[in-house]
Amino acid sequence: MTFRIEARVYYEDTDAGGIVYYANYLKFMERARTEWLRKIGIESEKMMAERRLCFVVAKVEIAYKRPARLDDLLTIEASVDTLSATRMRLRQNVTRGDDMIAEAFVDIAMINLDSGRGTKIPDDLATLLACA
Amino acid sequence: MTFRIEARVYYEDTDAGGIVYYANYLKFMERARTEWLRKIGIESEKMMAERRLCFVVAKVEIAYKRPARLDDLLTIEASVDTLSATRMRLRQNVTRGDDMIAEAFVDIAMINLDSGRGTKIPDDLATLLACA
Amino acid sequence: MTFRIEARVYYEDTDAGGIVYYANYLKFMERARTEWLRKIGIESEKMMAERRLCFVVAKVEIAYKRPARLDDLLTIEASVDTLSATRMRLRQNVTRGDDMIAEAFVDIAMINLDSGRGTKIPDDLATLLACA
Amino acid sequence: MTFRIEARVYYEDTDAGGIVYYANYLKFMERARTEWLRKIGIESEKMMAERRLCFVVAKVEIAYKRPARLDDLLTIEASVDTLSATRMRLRQNVTRGDDMIAEAFVDIAMINLDSGRGTKIPDDLATLLACA
Repeated sequence: MTFRIEARVYYEDTDAGGIVYYANYLKFMERARTEWLRKIGIESEKMMAERRLCFVVAKVEIAYKRPARLDDLLTIEASVDTLSATRMRLRQNVTRGDDMIAEAFVDIAMINLDSGRGTKIPDDLATLLACA
Repeated sequence: MTFRIEARVYYEDTDAGGIVYYANYLKFMERARTEWLRKIGIESEKMMAERRLCFVVAKVEIAYKRPARLDDLLTIEASVDTLSATRMRLRQNVTRGDDMIAEAFVDIAMINLDSGRGTKIPDDLATLLACA
Repeated sequence: MTFRIEARVYYEDTDAGGIVYYANYLKFMERARTEWLRKIGIESEKMMAERRLCFVVAKVEIAYKRPARLDDLLTIEASVDTLSATRMRLRQNVTRGDDMIAEAFVDIAMINLDSGRGTKIPDDLATLLACA
Repeated sequence: MTFRIEARVYYEDTDAGGIVYYANYLKFMERARTEWLRKIGIESEKMMAERRLCFVVAKVEIAYKRPARLDDLLTIEASVDTLSATRMRLRQNVTRGDDMIAEAFVDIAMINLDSGRGTKIPDDLATLLACA
């Protein structure tokens, strides 16, 4: 199942080329991930405070297909592509109606805040992610 | 005496109007303040760790005079306009050669990190600021 | 009458101090102005294409009252404070529930795109703004 | 040969996690590309005005290795990894001293501004890139 949010393109998102600046799609994608985690019941603050765990972005692959412009209404997706013991790969496409604007994969690693190292995703969280 | 840094305008700073986005001048101004404090010998990290004090922006007044564009080389100033027991007002103009791009005043308050409230600027720091 | 939008605080809006970066309130304020103009029937694109006119930010005064943090839900206002022949001053406060986060005034000037100079706000637009 | 610029990490670059926000590395990388093109003698403005050609980012792959923090001095690289008739792949690593912060590849396509489509990189530009 694919989670979706919408984002309007404002001046802050654009550049002098008249289009959305290439780094700003990563902002849209992070908004979508945040709302998706909230919706499936993963509370990042609690996970950090009680378990000393957090998700960090380990890798991004993004292909820019078409430019988006001021006032465009974009849809940003988040869905689990693959899930391993310590990581997940999210698919995070950005579309405008039927147009593909950007195709992206984002690898998220589970980190232990005390060691600063990667660690196993706890079973209860893995279950929430697997069902998302 | 006026402290100055230079900043090149990159795509990240511009918007679809072809000019520097109005909020981004505040980024340039913060870069200038940071380098200025470093230069006059005020170490923010140490001030926070050892004295539980930090400077926060309390107010900004900025008048946009002329647009700046991609590839422009801007000069950003920082100088003390007025200094009181708990605050200072900085003058932070942005220029491009002889052109005034933006005229700004930034009020900085001294905050105690434990109380979250304004507090007196310690004498040694006030002396550094008064001589800056 | 006061127009309002809501904005969630995401990581992109915050800084290493754990709070919303001071320049980013200007992004929120621009989003509110854009939606407000759209709502009262002023079409910026059309105004530029057909009449060679556009609104530009001439001045911002913003007082930071309390910090906002990650996941906060902020309300950003836009209302006409004063309206003259060639300019308007908007009141654009940012609140979180009953807390005042930032109090701001934004001066907007009407510019003729061909001359690059300030010009009179046409009567039909002035009427829309006066009733907003 | 690898071109390098340095970038200081300011508050604008960080987020509430206390580290550089993941999208902001793409800003550093674009600054490095801009200065590199300028240095090897490719004038983007002239290329657009006289030949109706421009370079656009087609794809980014970035692996985040270690976090960077406020006041860090980062080095951002740009070098040609592969060059084809219509595209080039740049290697754009970000380091802090001997620490690898982020490893990135950026695919740049040559676009004809009138058709909006990919086109051959002219021989004179290809020569400059091949020798860079």
